[in-house]
Order: sequence, then C-alpha cells, then structure tokens
Amino acid sequence: MSLSWEQVVVHTISPVDLGRWWCNALGWIVVSDDHEEFEIRPEADQMPGLLFLRTAETKTTKNRLHIDLRPGDRDAEVDRLIGLGARRIDIGQGDVSWVVMADPEGNEFCVLSSR
Amino acid sequence: MSLSWEQVVVHTISPVDLGRWWCNALGWIVVSDDHEEFEIRPEADQMPGLLFLRTAETKTTKNRLHIDLRPGDRDAEVDRLIGLGARRIDIGQGDVSWVVMADPEGNEFCVLSSR
Repeated sequence: MSLSWEQVVVHTISPVDLGRWWCNALGWIVVSDDHEEFEIRPEADQMPGLLFLRTAETKTTKNRLHIDLRPGDRDAEVDRLIGLGARRIDIGQGDVSWVVMADPEGNEFCVLSSR
Repeated sequence: MSLSWEQVVVHTISPVDLGRWWCNALGWIVVSDDHEEFEIRPEADQMPGLLFLRTAETKTTKNRLHIDLRPGDRDAEVDRLIGLGARRIDIGQGDVSWVVMADPEGNEFCVLSSR
C-alpha cells in the first residue's frame, strides 16, 4: 500500500486570483502559474500543496472540508489576513479559541489558537 | 508572518466511522480517538492531518475542496480502496489520467497517475 497526500484541490471561479491570495496568506510559492490550474506549495518539493482548479459553479453551501491554520500569533495573523481581504464569519461557532474566517471566495477556514 | 497548515477538517455525520475509513485508506495513525472529533495524521507529529468533526448535516453538493492522492500503483490502490468501500464516480471528468472516487459518505477524492 502506497498512497501519499499530494494536494487539496480547491474548485474556484478564479484560479489565479484565489491561488495568489492563498499564496500570500500562507507565504508559500507558486509551482504552476496556470490560469486553469494554479498550484502552490510550502516549498517546491513539499506536499501536500493546494491546486486551484477552474469551475463555472459558484459556492452555494458551507464547505464540507476546510483548512485549519496554526498561527504564531493568532490575533496578528487574523489582522493580516483581514488586510489581505479575508473576513471573520459566524457559522454558529460560539465562544471558541479559534477564529472562523472566509477567503475572498467565501471558503471557510480557521485560524487556531497561537502556537 | 507565521501560519502552518495543521489539518483539513472534514464535517461528517459519523466522525469515528469515516475517520477510521480514511485511516485505513491512507495507512495513517489515530491521534485523537474521540467520537466528536476524530483525528488522524501520517505520523504522530506530522502535519497536516485530517480531523473528522461531527455535523448533523448530510452532504448535498459536490465538495468545493477535495483531496488528491498519489499512488505507487494506481490501479492496485483503486482496487484496494473499492475493497474498503469507496466507489468510482463520474463527475464529467472524461478520459483523464486520474480516477475520481467517493468515500463512504460521498466525499469526492482522486487517485492520480502512478508515481
């Protein structure tokens, strides 16, 4: 048995825009600067990465899968991400140690408590 | 700036069942055997992992995010995954080098061409 986790595919109406957004958010590098399949990784040979694949469909429901990020300083990272165009969202999480956010296309993600 | 990718959260009606399924599929280890938040990782201290979080909502649309796996031997892995309870699905992918599958809860994932 041999299966390795290569990437998470994010279906998007704008692969380059959303891919560049996440690249800036994470401080990763672009490994495929393609307008249909835009791919980023932490390092050129480090996986899993994120592959942004064009779809004509807009987002309609809360995502079944979402990404959790561990920050050095939670509040500083949240502010930085808001500066990039993310927003805080309320999905009924209540009073929790993490911050629920959405990227510019509405994909939910969480910034966890500080490392 | 310091953000690291800790996990992908999978919202599921059955965290333990689906989490164990993916653990067997990937050959990972369980790091939190909790019936509300079941967590697996490639190794105890290797991230990102997968966190299966209970929701009452069933899956209604194609997932906006999905996981791509790189196999040693694609066809052998597809057969093995079918044996575990996955199924091949047609999402209009046409004639491609990867196999589109769904886990027991219908979450789409792909087995890419052999390494």
